[in-house]
Amino acid sequence: MAPAGLFPIGLVGCGTVGTGVVRILQSSADLLAAQAGQSLTLRHVVVRDLTRARDVDLSGCAVSDSLDALIADPSVQAVVHVVGGVEGPRQDIVRLLQSGKDVITANKALLCAHGDELFELARSLGRTIGFEAAVAGGIPIISTVCTALTANRILAIEAILNGTSNFILTRMLDRRQIYDDVLREAQQLGYAEADPAMDVDGTDAAQKLAILAKLAFGTAIPFDRIARQGIQNIDLQDLLAAADLGYRIKLLAVARLMTERLEVSVQPTLVRADRSIAMTSGAHNFIAIEGDAVGVLKLAGAGAGRLPTASAVVADLVDCVTGRAACTFQALLRLQQRNPLPLHPSADIARRQYLRFNVADRPHVLADIAHVLGRHGISISSVRQDETEDSVDGTGVARLVILTHRAAEGCLQAADNEIDCLDSLRGPRIRMPIAD
Amino acid sequence: MAPAGLFPIGLVGCGTVGTGVVRILQSSADLLAAQAGQSLTLRHVVVRDLTRARDVDLSGCAVSDSLDALIADPSVQAVVHVVGGVEGPRQDIVRLLQSGKDVITANKALLCAHGDELFELARSLGRTIGFEAAVAGGIPIISTVCTALTANRILAIEAILNGTSNFILTRMLDRRQIYDDVLREAQQLGYAEADPAMDVDGTDAAQKLAILAKLAFGTAIPFDRIARQGIQNIDLQDLLAAADLGYRIKLLAVARLMTERLEVSVQPTLVRADRSIAMTSGAHNFIAIEGDAVGVLKLAGAGAGRLPTASAVVADLVDCVTGRAACTFQALLRLQQRNPLPLHPSADIARRQYLRFNVADRPHVLADIAHVLGRHGISISSVRQDETEDSVDGTGVARLVILTHRAAEGCLQAADNEIDCLDSLRGPRIRMPIAD
Repeated sequence: MAPAGLFPIGLVGCGTVGTGVVRILQSSADLLAAQAGQSLTLRHVVVRDLTRARDVDLSGCAVSDSLDALIADPSVQAVVHVVGGVEGPRQDIVRLLQSGKDVITANKALLCAHGDELFELARSLGRTIGFEAAVAGGIPIISTVCTALTANRILAIEAILNGTSNFILTRMLDRRQIYDDVLREAQQLGYAEADPAMDVDGTDAAQKLAILAKLAFGTAIPFDRIARQGIQNIDLQDLLAAADLGYRIKLLAVARLMTERLEVSVQPTLVRADRSIAMTSGAHNFIAIEGDAVGVLKLAGAGAGRLPTASAVVADLVDCVTGRAACTFQALLRLQQRNPLPLHPSADIARRQYLRFNVADRPHVLADIAHVLGRHGISISSVRQDETEDSVDGTGVARLVILTHRAAEGCLQAADNEIDCLDSLRGPRIRMPIAD
Repeated sequence: MAPAGLFPIGLVGCGTVGTGVVRILQSSADLLAAQAGQSLTLRHVVVRDLTRARDVDLSGCAVSDSLDALIADPSVQAVVHVVGGVEGPRQDIVRLLQSGKDVITANKALLCAHGDELFELARSLGRTIGFEAAVAGGIPIISTVCTALTANRILAIEAILNGTSNFILTRMLDRRQIYDDVLREAQQLGYAEADPAMDVDGTDAAQKLAILAKLAFGTAIPFDRIARQGIQNIDLQDLLAAADLGYRIKLLAVARLMTERLEVSVQPTLVRADRSIAMTSGAHNFIAIEGDAVGVLKLAGAGAGRLPTASAVVADLVDCVTGRAACTFQALLRLQQRNPLPLHPSADIARRQYLRFNVADRPHVLADIAHVLGRHGISISSVRQDETEDSVDGTGVARLVILTHRAAEGCLQAADNEIDCLDSLRGPRIRMPIAD
């Protein structure tokens, strides 16, 4: 057993977040002890590659490339598990829970895929899983939903949950740069992964939204039921056109109660430029959550990064020491047992839309598109086609931006399919809803 | 004893917040029971005036104009105390704690004056005091500081904590209305009290700042050490002049660590118009809190009002049921035992300033003021004096707006004193810092 006053900790994974946790445990040891009532002491660190140099001092703890010593040490009651991937972390966390340890994770992909199973295992073993860091990094949105808003029926969540794509969209507009250049810069700055697919295609944001929506609405949302669209096809001209119209384009994650059904989506969306969500810049995250008592509560801050994410992990650790984690986890499990809400069929959802087409610069093209929209009952509110420079010989490509009045998603999709068959289309078209 | 599964509650005070609590307990009974694991049941309501009509149904509980029955009922473990004033509530809460009950209060004046004494009493009796609703209404800033940011050394708090004054400042500018008219409207809308003095003179914001700073910095700040200035002398022309310069005027509550000393103030301040704090409109509150790990975290929402405040009260109630309140309160007590920080002498704090004078429209006045500023080493960065309409005969009043470069508060106060002696001054002058 640990001597009285010491709370021994394990850490699995010593990459960006892991080294951040080590840093905070060391630099804020006194402050943490003051709050927790015990000294948080890092005893075991498990890494994949023992030879890799790390810029933190691990001299005080046992470093291993296997879980075994950590699992075998009964003095360790809480383990921070910050390793990417799904199946490996799942197996690790099962073993850690079974060995009687509370677990803290920042792995949204894991929780999105296996959260129910892991939560149930933790419950049956009397352990807890902390995951504040899994959604929106340093912003305490999990505890806000699970503890601060208990008096509220949650009506809507509207959020920017992926810092990489927000950085790209902001930087493109601010510096008039093209997508590829900004993506490369984001990778150099460490905001984007070497493979940024999950960030820019909306997967990461959708995983976080699924975790949040489960807590906020008591409803498990199968990942493939989240209408999901990435930012890959948005070009600088779209951002400029939206800005001209008084909007910003943001990758919005939305979960909203509509007539007792739940609408969930992750989509680039035009948001009025003067709204605070539109002004969320760089790699920051933003969450507006509406409750029936509190109204709209807004939170903004660092959604990723070494120390902000580690800040959330260490807060969960302190909660394990004080006993708060156990109270919260029990409440969270009860919260998830509510009657789930049906999902809103996306075909019924009606919104205004921004449509952009690159089309052959020749007669009838605008008429053809307008006819298709008309046939599906989609009413045009404004059209803009600027002169192209190379259109003299009829081989140029024109850029057509159409804003529509409110139209149902089903009608829009039917129109999309027909428009995709027009031989005048050149390259990918874009369609984005306009937030009201 | 209560039957298993019931958590009996007492309520003292059935005004705006109290009726909001009753509303939520009734309308969200199932949701609350799901989270708390027990049914929150209102058993006693204590009111001052038994004859007054209230728009909530109290038929299921004992209504009294004395605490006695509530105190005598051992089944009640938690009491919501939402009554204004200081001495009466203090005595009530002492009795409630002594009778073995946890207490939840929204009374910032009480906590600011007697928080230490009441917390110590609660500690000694093994009870808890919840006060999320005392600062920023529905925004969970207390739990954010006490639980979500435990990994952080707090570096700064910059906040709008008084909804009434923010409503007045926003509305004056938006509608080009004068102070008195907007104040009257705020009173009609219920945003301002019949006696709005504590709201508009900065007292209310300073009380909330003192509560927050105690938690965030472990430092008790005597109320009279908070540099405090209200909004009463700001006129529409000031708001318009600031807007012209790209600023908004906000009543900012600031607590900031500067070279290991704490600067605290509540002052109308010019804030760049594109910052999110500047865009906080109406009766909303806003808090930016900076931690060394998390960076800047921003929270915004309803800072007052019946249901938002009740939302925070009921969250504290659920925390009492789940046991989280006890964990949090213990941690909070330990947090307050840190070494207090010395306060930064306000005379040393150097900031840019907005100065506005109404002066006799005659020769030498500008020169006189400029000389005074110069003698105290205060450098002028811009001056603006618009033509007055009635200045032909030399009896008109001119309006002079001066922006200064950074100058120490001590020098500014010395200059203020000299300028106040100039016989050319007409009516109150205004000096406000400009946030960088």
